[in-house]
Amino acid sequence: MTDPRTSVITERLSGVSRIIAVSSGKGGVGKSMVASALALSLAKEGSRVGLFDLDFTGPSTHIILGVPANIQPKEDRGIVPPIFEGLEYMSLVYYVGDNPAPLRGTDISNALIELLSITQWGMLDFLVIDMPPGIGDAVLDLVRLVERIEFLIITTPSILAFEVVKKQVALLCELKMPIVGVVENMKLDKAKTVEVASLKLGLKYIGSIPYDPKVEEAIGNPKKLLDTAVGKSMTQIKKSAKNKK
Amino acid sequence: MTDPRTSVITERLSGVSRIIAVSSGKGGVGKSMVASALALSLAKEGSRVGLFDLDFTGPSTHIILGVPANIQPKEDRGIVPPIFEGLEYMSLVYYVGDNPAPLRGTDISNALIELLSITQWGMLDFLVIDMPPGIGDAVLDLVRLVERIEFLIITTPSILAFEVVKKQVALLCELKMPIVGVVENMKLDKAKTVEVASLKLGLKYIGSIPYDPKVEEAIGNPKKLLDTAVGKSMTQIKKSAKNKK
Repeated sequence: MTDPRTSVITERLSGVSRIIAVSSGKGGVGKSMVASALALSLAKEGSRVGLFDLDFTGPSTHIILGVPANIQPKEDRGIVPPIFEGLEYMSLVYYVGDNPAPLRGTDISNALIELLSITQWGMLDFLVIDMPPGIGDAVLDLVRLVERIEFLIITTPSILAFEVVKKQVALLCELKMPIVGVVENMKLDKAKTVEVASLKLGLKYIGSIPYDPKVEEAIGNPKKLLDTAVGKSMTQIKKSAKNKK
Repeated sequence: MTDPRTSVITERLSGVSRIIAVSSGKGGVGKSMVASALALSLAKEGSRVGLFDLDFTGPSTHIILGVPANIQPKEDRGIVPPIFEGLEYMSLVYYVGDNPAPLRGTDISNALIELLSITQWGMLDFLVIDMPPGIGDAVLDLVRLVERIEFLIITTPSILAFEVVKKQVALLCELKMPIVGVVENMKLDKAKTVEVASLKLGLKYIGSIPYDPKVEEAIGNPKKLLDTAVGKSMTQIKKSAKNKK
Protein backbone atom coordinates (compact mmCIF):
# COMPACT_ATOMS: atom_id res chain seq x y z
CA MET A 1 0.00 0.00 0.00
CA THR A 2 1.54 3.29 -1.05
CA ASP A 3 0.85 6.32 1.08
CA PRO A 4 -0.35 9.10 -1.27
CA ARG A 5 1.97 11.48 0.52
CA THR A 6 4.95 9.40 -0.61
CA SER A 7 4.61 10.73 -4.15
CA VAL A 8 4.51 14.35 -2.96
CA ILE A 9 7.64 13.76 -0.90
CA THR A 10 9.34 11.87 -3.73
CA GLU A 11 8.64 14.81 -6.05
CA ARG A 12 10.07 17.27 -3.49
CA LEU A 13 13.24 15.21 -3.20
CA SER A 14 13.61 14.51 -6.93
CA GLY A 15 16.55 16.91 -7.30
CA VAL A 16 18.50 15.23 -4.52
CA SER A 17 21.05 12.62 -5.62
CA ARG A 18 21.68 10.86 -2.32
CA ILE A 19 19.71 10.83 0.92
CA ILE A 20 21.87 9.78 3.86
CA ALA A 21 20.01 9.17 7.12
CA VAL A 22 22.45 9.41 10.02
CA SER A 23 20.90 7.13 12.54
CA SER A 24 21.50 5.34 15.83
CA GLY A 25 19.53 2.84 17.80
CA LYS A 26 20.55 4.56 21.01
CA GLY A 27 20.64 8.26 21.91
CA GLY A 28 23.78 10.01 23.09
CA VAL A 29 26.18 8.32 20.69
CA GLY A 30 27.08 11.50 18.81
CA LYS A 31 24.71 11.05 15.88
CA SER A 32 23.93 14.78 15.51
CA MET A 33 27.60 15.63 15.79
CA VAL A 34 28.51 13.21 13.00
CA ALA A 35 25.59 14.36 10.83
CA SER A 36 26.66 18.00 11.23
CA ALA A 37 30.33 17.28 10.54
CA LEU A 38 29.50 15.11 7.53
CA ALA A 39 27.27 17.78 5.99
CA LEU A 40 29.82 20.54 6.67
CA SER A 41 32.68 18.51 5.32
CA LEU A 42 30.85 17.52 2.12
CA ALA A 43 29.88 21.16 1.54
CA LYS A 44 33.42 22.33 2.15
CA GLU A 45 34.75 20.23 -0.70
CA GLY A 46 32.22 21.65 -3.11
CA SER A 47 29.22 19.30 -2.96
CA ARG A 48 25.74 20.78 -2.79
CA VAL A 49 24.50 19.65 0.60
CA GLY A 50 21.38 19.92 2.71
CA LEU A 51 21.19 19.13 6.41
CA PHE A 52 17.75 18.22 7.72
CA ASP A 53 17.33 17.85 11.49
CA LEU A 54 14.38 15.56 12.11
CA ASP A 55 15.40 14.44 15.60
CA PHE A 56 12.28 15.52 17.44
CA THR A 57 13.58 13.98 20.69
CA GLY A 58 15.95 16.92 20.96
CA PRO A 59 16.95 18.72 17.78
CA SER A 60 20.51 19.87 18.33
CA THR A 61 22.26 20.50 15.00
CA HIS A 62 21.37 24.21 15.27
CA ILE A 63 23.28 24.29 18.56
CA ILE A 64 26.20 22.25 17.18
CA LEU A 65 26.54 24.47 14.10
CA GLY A 66 25.76 27.68 15.99
CA VAL A 67 23.02 28.72 13.56
CA PRO A 68 22.02 32.26 14.60
CA ALA A 69 18.36 32.83 15.42
CA ASN A 70 17.97 35.32 12.56
CA ILE A 71 18.82 32.61 10.00
CA GLN A 72 15.36 31.32 9.13
CA PRO A 73 13.65 29.50 6.28
CA LYS A 74 11.65 31.58 3.80
CA GLU A 75 8.26 30.84 2.35
CA ASP A 76 8.10 30.60 -1.44
CA ARG A 77 5.79 27.92 -2.85
CA GLY A 78 6.78 25.81 0.13
CA ILE A 79 9.64 26.43 2.51
CA VAL A 80 13.11 27.37 1.27
CA PRO A 81 15.89 26.40 3.70
CA PRO A 82 18.38 29.13 4.59
CA ILE A 83 22.03 28.71 3.66
CA PHE A 84 24.44 28.49 6.57
CA GLU A 85 28.14 27.63 6.26
CA GLY A 86 27.51 26.55 2.69
CA LEU A 87 24.69 24.18 3.68
CA GLU A 88 20.98 24.30 3.03
CA TYR A 89 19.86 24.02 6.62
CA MET A 90 16.49 22.92 7.89
CA SER A 91 15.33 21.76 11.29
CA LEU A 92 12.17 20.66 13.04
CA VAL A 93 13.16 23.28 15.62
CA TYR A 94 11.87 25.98 13.26
CA TYR A 95 8.39 24.49 13.60
CA VAL A 96 8.14 22.81 16.98
CA GLY A 97 10.42 25.40 18.55
CA ASP A 98 12.73 25.06 21.50
CA ASN A 99 9.82 24.97 23.90
CA PRO A 100 9.27 22.04 26.21
CA ALA A 101 5.82 21.13 24.87
CA PRO A 102 6.03 17.45 24.06
CA LEU A 103 4.53 16.18 20.85
CA ARG A 104 2.27 13.15 20.95
CA GLY A 105 3.01 10.36 18.45
CA THR A 106 0.62 11.40 15.70
CA ASP A 107 1.67 15.06 16.01
CA ILE A 108 5.27 14.01 15.45
CA SER A 109 4.34 11.98 12.39
CA ASN A 110 2.32 14.86 11.02
CA ALA A 111 5.11 17.36 11.64
CA LEU A 112 7.67 15.14 9.89
CA ILE A 113 5.42 14.50 6.91
CA GLU A 114 4.48 18.16 6.65
CA LEU A 115 8.11 19.26 6.69
CA LEU A 116 9.13 16.65 4.12
CA SER A 117 6.25 17.70 1.88
CA ILE A 118 6.89 21.44 1.92
CA THR A 119 10.66 21.84 1.99
CA GLN A 120 12.21 22.99 -1.31
CA TRP A 121 15.69 21.52 -1.39
CA GLY A 122 16.29 22.09 -5.09
CA MET A 123 19.32 20.36 -6.60
CA LEU A 124 21.54 18.64 -4.04
CA ASP A 125 24.31 16.09 -4.22
CA PHE A 126 23.60 15.02 -0.66
CA LEU A 127 20.78 15.45 1.80
CA VAL A 128 22.03 14.47 5.26
CA ILE A 129 19.19 13.72 7.68
CA ASP A 130 19.75 13.77 11.43
CA MET A 131 17.31 11.01 12.34
CA PRO A 132 15.39 10.47 15.57
CA PRO A 133 17.09 7.75 17.64
CA GLY A 134 15.62 4.31 17.99
CA ILE A 135 13.21 2.38 15.86
CA GLY A 136 9.98 4.09 16.86
CA ASP A 137 7.12 5.48 14.83
CA ALA A 138 9.07 8.42 13.41
CA VAL A 139 11.81 6.21 11.99
CA LEU A 140 9.22 3.85 10.51
CA ASP A 141 7.41 6.78 8.92
CA LEU A 142 10.59 8.12 7.38
CA VAL A 143 11.50 4.70 6.01
CA ARG A 144 8.05 4.43 4.51
CA LEU A 145 7.81 7.94 3.09
CA VAL A 146 11.31 8.74 1.87
CA GLU A 147 12.27 6.61 -1.11
CA ARG A 148 15.99 6.09 -1.73
CA ILE A 149 16.86 6.72 1.94
CA GLU A 150 20.16 5.10 2.95
CA PHE A 151 21.29 4.57 6.51
CA LEU A 152 24.59 5.48 8.11
CA ILE A 153 24.63 3.81 11.51
CA ILE A 154 26.40 5.45 14.45
CA THR A 155 27.30 3.56 17.60
CA THR A 156 29.81 3.84 20.43
CA PRO A 157 32.14 1.07 21.62
CA SER A 158 29.74 0.37 24.52
CA ILE A 159 28.02 -2.99 24.32
CA LEU A 160 24.86 -1.26 25.56
CA ALA A 161 24.81 0.99 22.51
CA PHE A 162 25.70 -1.80 20.14
CA GLU A 163 23.00 -4.12 21.51
CA VAL A 164 20.41 -1.52 20.50
CA VAL A 165 22.11 -0.97 17.14
CA LYS A 166 21.81 -4.69 16.41
CA LYS A 167 18.04 -4.48 16.81
CA GLN A 168 17.89 -1.45 14.57
CA VAL A 169 19.96 -3.17 11.90
CA ALA A 170 17.77 -6.28 12.06
CA LEU A 171 14.73 -4.07 11.48
CA LEU A 172 16.33 -2.14 8.61
CA CYS A 173 17.39 -5.39 6.96
CA GLU A 174 13.89 -6.76 7.32
CA LEU A 175 12.58 -3.61 5.63
CA LYS A 176 15.28 -4.07 2.93
CA MET A 177 16.76 -0.62 3.60
CA PRO A 178 20.25 0.06 2.24
CA ILE A 179 22.87 0.57 4.95
CA VAL A 180 25.98 2.58 4.06
CA GLY A 181 27.89 1.18 7.03
CA VAL A 182 28.71 1.50 10.71
CA VAL A 183 30.74 4.26 12.37
CA GLU A 184 32.07 3.68 15.87
CA ASN A 185 32.18 7.02 17.67
CA MET A 186 34.00 8.08 20.87
CA LYS A 187 36.52 5.26 20.70
CA LEU A 188 38.99 5.09 23.58
CA ASP A 189 40.97 1.95 22.80
CA LYS A 190 41.75 -0.45 19.98
CA ALA A 191 39.12 -3.10 20.76
CA LYS A 192 37.72 -4.81 17.66
CA THR A 193 34.39 -5.81 19.22
CA VAL A 194 32.17 -3.50 17.19
CA GLU A 195 34.14 -4.06 13.99
CA VAL A 196 33.85 -7.84 14.27
CA ALA A 197 30.18 -7.68 15.27
CA SER A 198 29.39 -5.33 12.35
CA LEU A 199 31.00 -7.62 9.80
CA LYS A 200 29.14 -10.55 11.33
CA LEU A 201 25.89 -8.67 10.67
CA GLY A 202 26.98 -8.29 7.04
CA LEU A 203 27.61 -4.55 7.42
CA LYS A 204 30.49 -2.45 6.27
CA TYR A 205 32.55 -1.16 9.20
CA ILE A 206 33.50 2.29 7.95
CA GLY A 207 35.81 3.13 10.82
CA SER A 208 36.07 4.68 14.21
CA ILE A 209 36.21 8.24 15.53
CA PRO A 210 38.50 8.66 18.55
CA TYR A 211 37.01 10.25 21.66
CA ASP A 212 38.08 13.89 21.64
CA PRO A 213 37.28 16.24 24.54
CA LYS A 214 37.69 19.18 22.13
CA VAL A 215 34.38 18.25 20.49
CA GLU A 216 32.44 19.73 23.43
CA GLU A 217 34.36 23.01 23.12
CA ALA A 218 33.67 23.09 19.39
CA ILE A 219 29.89 23.19 19.85
CA GLY A 220 28.58 26.27 18.06
CA ASN A 221 31.72 26.66 15.96
CA PRO A 222 31.77 24.80 12.61
CA LYS A 223 35.40 25.59 11.88
CA LYS A 224 36.53 24.23 15.24
CA LEU A 225 34.31 21.18 14.78
CA LEU A 226 36.03 20.25 11.52
CA ASP A 227 39.31 20.49 13.39
CA THR A 228 38.34 17.91 16.04
CA ALA A 229 38.66 14.13 15.76
CA VAL A 230 35.07 14.06 14.50
CA GLY A 231 35.78 16.50 11.68
CA LYS A 232 39.04 14.80 10.77
CA SER A 233 37.35 11.40 10.56
CA MET A 234 35.04 12.56 7.80
CA THR A 235 37.40 11.59 4.93
CA GLN A 236 36.66 7.91 5.39
CA ILE A 237 32.97 8.43 6.01
CA LYS A 238 32.55 10.67 2.97
CA LYS A 239 34.25 8.04 0.83
CA SER A 240 31.73 5.44 1.96
CA ALA A 241 28.82 7.84 1.60
CA LYS A 242 29.83 8.52 -2.01
CA ASN A 243 30.08 4.86 -2.98
CA LYS A 244 26.77 4.07 -4.54
CA LYS A 245 25.79 0.55 -3.54
CA MET B 1 -10.16 13.57 33.99
CA THR B 2 -8.92 10.50 35.82
CA ASP B 3 -8.06 7.48 33.74
CA PRO B 4 -9.89 4.48 35.27
CA ARG B 5 -6.67 2.51 34.96
CA THR B 6 -4.97 4.92 37.35
CA SER B 7 -6.86 3.43 40.29
CA VAL B 8 -5.86 -0.12 39.34
CA ILE B 9 -2.23 0.96 39.11
CA THR B 10 -2.46 2.96 42.34
CA GLU B 11 -3.82 -0.14 44.10
CA ARG B 12 -0.98 -2.28 42.69
CA LEU B 13 1.59 0.22 43.95
CA SER B 14 -0.06 0.80 47.33
CA GLY B 15 2.59 -1.20 49.22
CA VAL B 16 5.43 0.84 47.72
CA SER B 17 6.70 3.73 49.86
CA ARG B 18 8.66 5.66 47.27
CA ILE B 19 8.60 5.57 43.49
CA ILE B 20 11.78 7.00 41.99
CA ALA B 21 11.74 7.48 38.21
CA VAL B 22 15.31 7.69 36.94
CA SER B 23 14.95 9.84 33.91
CA SER B 24 16.86 11.80 31.29
CA GLY B 25 15.85 14.09 28.50
CA LYS B 26 18.54 12.64 26.31
CA GLY B 27 19.58 9.03 25.72
CA GLY B 28 23.09 7.73 26.33
CA VAL B 29 23.72 9.65 29.56
CA GLY B 30 23.97 6.55 31.75
CA LYS B 31 20.39 6.57 33.06
CA SER B 32 20.05 2.77 33.13
CA MET B 33 23.44 2.44 34.75
CA VAL B 34 22.50 4.85 37.55
CA ALA B 35 19.07 3.23 38.00
CA SER B 36 20.68 -0.21 38.31
CA ALA B 37 23.37 0.96 40.73
CA LEU B 38 20.85 2.89 42.83
CA ALA B 39 18.53 -0.12 43.15
CA LEU B 40 21.42 -2.49 43.93
CA SER B 41 22.91 -0.13 46.44
CA LEU B 42 19.62 0.49 48.26
CA ALA B 43 18.97 -3.28 48.40
CA LYS B 44 22.47 -3.96 49.69
CA GLU B 45 21.90 -1.79 52.75
CA GLY B 46 18.70 -3.64 53.61
CA SER B 47 15.92 -1.69 51.91
CA ARG B 48 13.22 -3.61 50.07
CA VAL B 49 13.72 -2.54 46.48
CA GLY B 50 12.15 -3.14 43.10
CA LEU B 51 13.74 -2.26 39.78
CA PHE B 52 11.34 -1.76 36.88
CA ASP B 53 12.81 -1.31 33.40
CA LEU B 54 10.31 0.59 31.30
CA ASP B 55 12.77 1.96 28.76
CA PHE B 56 11.17 0.54 25.64
CA THR B 57 13.69 2.37 23.43
CA GLY B 58 16.25 -0.22 24.50
CA PRO B 59 15.75 -1.99 27.82
CA SER B 60 19.24 -2.63 29.15
CA THR B 61 19.15 -3.14 32.93
CA HIS B 62 19.03 -6.92 32.39
CA ILE B 63 22.31 -6.63 30.49
CA ILE B 64 23.83 -4.27 33.09
CA LEU B 65 22.88 -6.54 36.00
CA GLY B 66 23.60 -9.75 34.08
CA VAL B 67 20.16 -11.22 34.84
CA PRO B 68 20.32 -14.83 33.57
CA ALA B 69 17.67 -15.85 31.03
CA ASN B 70 16.24 -18.48 33.38
CA ILE B 71 15.31 -15.79 35.93
CA GLN B 72 11.76 -14.99 34.90
CA PRO B 73 8.63 -13.53 36.46
CA LYS B 74 5.96 -15.96 37.66
CA GLU B 75 2.23 -15.72 37.19
CA ASP B 76 0.16 -15.68 40.36
CA ARG B 77 -2.88 -13.38 40.34
CA GLY B 78 -0.82 -11.02 38.20
CA ILE B 79 2.90 -11.16 37.59
CA VAL B 80 5.36 -11.69 40.44
CA PRO B 81 8.82 -10.25 39.70
CA PRO B 82 11.76 -12.59 40.27
CA ILE B 83 14.36 -11.72 42.90
CA PHE B 84 17.84 -11.08 41.57
CA GLU B 85 20.73 -9.73 43.66
CA GLY B 86 18.27 -8.89 46.42
CA LEU B 87 16.03 -6.87 44.07
CA GLU B 88 12.56 -7.52 42.77
CA TYR B 89 13.36 -7.25 39.10
CA MET B 90 10.97 -6.57 36.27
CA SER B 91 11.53 -5.45 32.71
CA LEU B 92 9.56 -4.73 29.57
CA VAL B 93 12.04 -7.08 27.93
CA TYR B 94 10.12 -10.03 29.41
CA TYR B 95 7.14 -9.00 27.33
CA VAL B 96 8.38 -7.24 24.23
CA GLY B 97 11.47 -9.45 24.10
CA ASP B 98 14.88 -8.71 22.68
CA ASN B 99 13.58 -8.93 19.16
CA PRO B 100 13.84 -6.00 16.77
CA ALA B 101 10.09 -5.62 16.21
CA PRO B 102 9.38 -1.97 16.84
CA LEU B 103 6.33 -1.01 18.84
CA ARG B 104 4.03 1.68 17.51
CA GLY B 105 3.03 4.44 19.95
CA THR B 106 -0.24 2.97 21.16
CA ASP B 107 1.31 -0.49 21.56
CA ILE B 108 3.97 1.01 23.80
CA SER B 109 1.37 2.79 25.92
CA ASN B 110 -0.66 -0.38 26.19
CA ALA B 111 2.37 -2.46 27.13
CA LEU B 112 3.40 0.02 29.85
CA ILE B 113 -0.11 0.24 31.28
CA GLU B 114 -0.55 -3.53 31.17
CA LEU B 115 2.73 -4.12 32.98
CA LEU B 116 1.95 -1.49 35.62
CA SER B 117 -1.49 -3.00 36.15
CA ILE B 118 -0.44 -6.61 36.57
CA THR B 119 2.89 -6.52 38.42
CA GLN B 120 2.72 -7.58 42.08
CA TRP B 121 5.44 -5.64 43.83
CA GLY B 122 4.21 -6.28 47.35
CA MET B 123 5.79 -4.20 50.12
CA LEU B 124 8.73 -2.11 48.96
CA ASP B 125 10.67 0.78 50.43
CA PHE B 126 11.70 1.88 46.94
CA LEU B 127 10.58 1.16 43.43
CA VAL B 128 13.24 2.43 41.03
CA ILE B 129 11.94 2.89 37.48
CA ASP B 130 14.29 3.05 34.53
CA MET B 131 12.29 5.49 32.42
CA PRO B 132 12.21 5.90 28.65
CA PRO B 133 14.34 8.89 27.61
CA GLY B 134 12.78 12.10 26.44
CA ILE B 135 9.37 13.60 27.00
CA GLY B 136 7.37 11.54 24.58
CA ASP B 137 4.09 9.68 24.95
CA ALA B 138 5.44 7.00 27.24
CA VAL B 139 6.76 9.49 29.78
CA LEU B 140 3.51 11.43 29.68
CA ASP B 141 1.55 8.22 30.26
CA LEU B 142 3.68 7.27 33.23
CA VAL B 143 3.31 10.72 34.74
CA ARG B 144 -0.43 10.47 34.31
CA LEU B 145 -0.88 6.92 35.54
CA VAL B 146 1.61 6.55 38.37
CA GLU B 147 0.65 8.67 41.36
CA ARG B 148 3.45 9.66 43.75
CA ILE B 149 6.11 9.29 41.03
CA GLU B 150 9.24 11.39 41.76
CA PHE B 151 11.92 12.19 39.22
CA LEU B 152 15.66 11.78 39.53
CA ILE B 153 17.19 13.57 36.55
CA ILE B 154 20.38 12.29 34.95
CA THR B 155 22.48 14.41 32.62
CA THR B 156 26.07 14.56 31.44
CA PRO B 157 28.29 17.67 31.46
CA SER B 158 27.60 18.15 27.73
CA ILE B 159 25.56 21.22 26.93
CA LEU B 160 23.71 19.15 24.32
CA ALA B 161 22.45 16.79 27.02
CA PHE B 162 21.65 19.59 29.42
CA GLU B 163 19.72 21.57 26.81
CA VAL B 164 17.35 18.61 26.48
CA VAL B 165 17.20 18.17 30.25
CA LYS B 166 16.07 21.78 30.58
CA LYS B 167 13.08 21.08 28.36
CA GLN B 168 12.24 17.98 30.33
CA VAL B 169 12.43 19.87 33.62
CA ALA B 170 10.22 22.65 32.26
CA LEU B 171 7.63 20.05 31.33
CA LEU B 172 7.82 18.23 34.68
CA CYS B 173 7.47 21.53 36.53
CA GLU B 174 4.47 22.44 34.40
CA LEU B 175 2.92 19.08 35.32
CA LYS B 176 3.82 19.78 38.98
CA MET B 177 5.89 16.61 39.28
CA PRO B 178 8.29 16.36 42.23
CA ILE B 179 11.95 16.29 41.22
CA VAL B 180 14.43 14.69 43.63
CA GLY B 181 17.35 16.44 41.96
CA VAL B 182 19.95 16.37 39.20
CA VAL B 183 22.88 13.97 38.90
CA GLU B 184 25.70 14.85 36.51
CA ASN B 185 27.14 11.63 35.12
CA MET B 186 30.46 10.94 33.32
CA LYS B 187 32.14 14.06 34.62
CA LEU B 188 35.67 14.66 33.36
CA ASP B 189 36.55 18.00 34.93
CA LYS B 190 35.49 20.38 37.67
CA ALA B 191 33.29 22.68 35.59
CA LYS B 192 30.29 24.07 37.51
CA THR B 193 28.10 24.68 34.45
CA VAL B 194 25.49 22.02 35.17
CA GLU B 195 25.48 22.72 38.90
CA VAL B 196 24.88 26.43 38.38
CA ALA B 197 22.27 25.82 35.68
CA SER B 198 20.44 23.28 37.89
CA LEU B 199 20.23 25.67 40.82
CA LYS B 200 19.02 28.36 38.45
CA LEU B 201 16.16 26.05 37.46
CA GLY B 202 15.33 25.70 41.16
CA LEU B 203 16.55 22.10 41.28
CA LYS B 204 18.71 20.36 43.80
CA TYR B 205 22.12 19.47 42.35
CA ILE B 206 22.75 16.12 44.02
CA GLY B 207 26.28 15.72 42.73
CA SER B 208 28.43 14.33 39.98
CA ILE B 209 29.69 10.88 39.04
CA PRO B 210 33.20 10.89 37.60
CA TYR B 211 33.72 9.24 34.22
CA ASP B 212 35.10 5.77 34.90
CA PRO B 213 36.18 3.44 32.07
CA LYS B 214 35.73 0.49 34.46
CA VAL B 215 31.94 0.92 34.18
CA GLU B 216 31.94 -0.70 30.73
CA GLU B 217 33.89 -3.69 32.06
CA ALA B 218 31.43 -4.01 34.95
CA ILE B 219 28.44 -4.60 32.66
CA GLY B 220 26.85 -7.88 33.65
CA ASN B 221 28.52 -7.96 37.06
CA PRO B 222 26.64 -6.21 39.91
CA LYS B 223 29.49 -6.54 42.41
CA LYS B 224 31.94 -4.93 40.01
CA LEU B 225 29.41 -2.21 39.20
CA LEU B 226 29.12 -1.19 42.85
CA ASP B 227 32.90 -0.92 42.88
CA THR B 228 33.05 1.62 40.01
CA ALA B 229 32.68 5.38 40.28
CA VAL B 230 28.96 4.93 39.57
CA GLY B 231 28.50 2.50 42.46
CA LYS B 232 30.60 4.58 44.81
CA SER B 233 28.59 7.72 44.04
CA MET B 234 25.38 6.16 45.30
CA THR B 235 25.83 7.32 48.92
CA GLN B 236 24.93 10.89 48.03
CA ILE B 237 22.16 9.88 45.65
CA LYS B 238 20.58 7.50 48.17
CA LYS B 239 20.61 10.26 50.75
CA SER B 240 18.67 12.55 48.42
CA ALA B 241 16.33 9.76 47.37
CA LYS B 242 15.48 9.08 51.02
CA ASN B 243 14.71 12.70 51.87
CA LYS B 244 10.99 12.98 51.53
CA LYS B 245 10.18 16.37 50.04
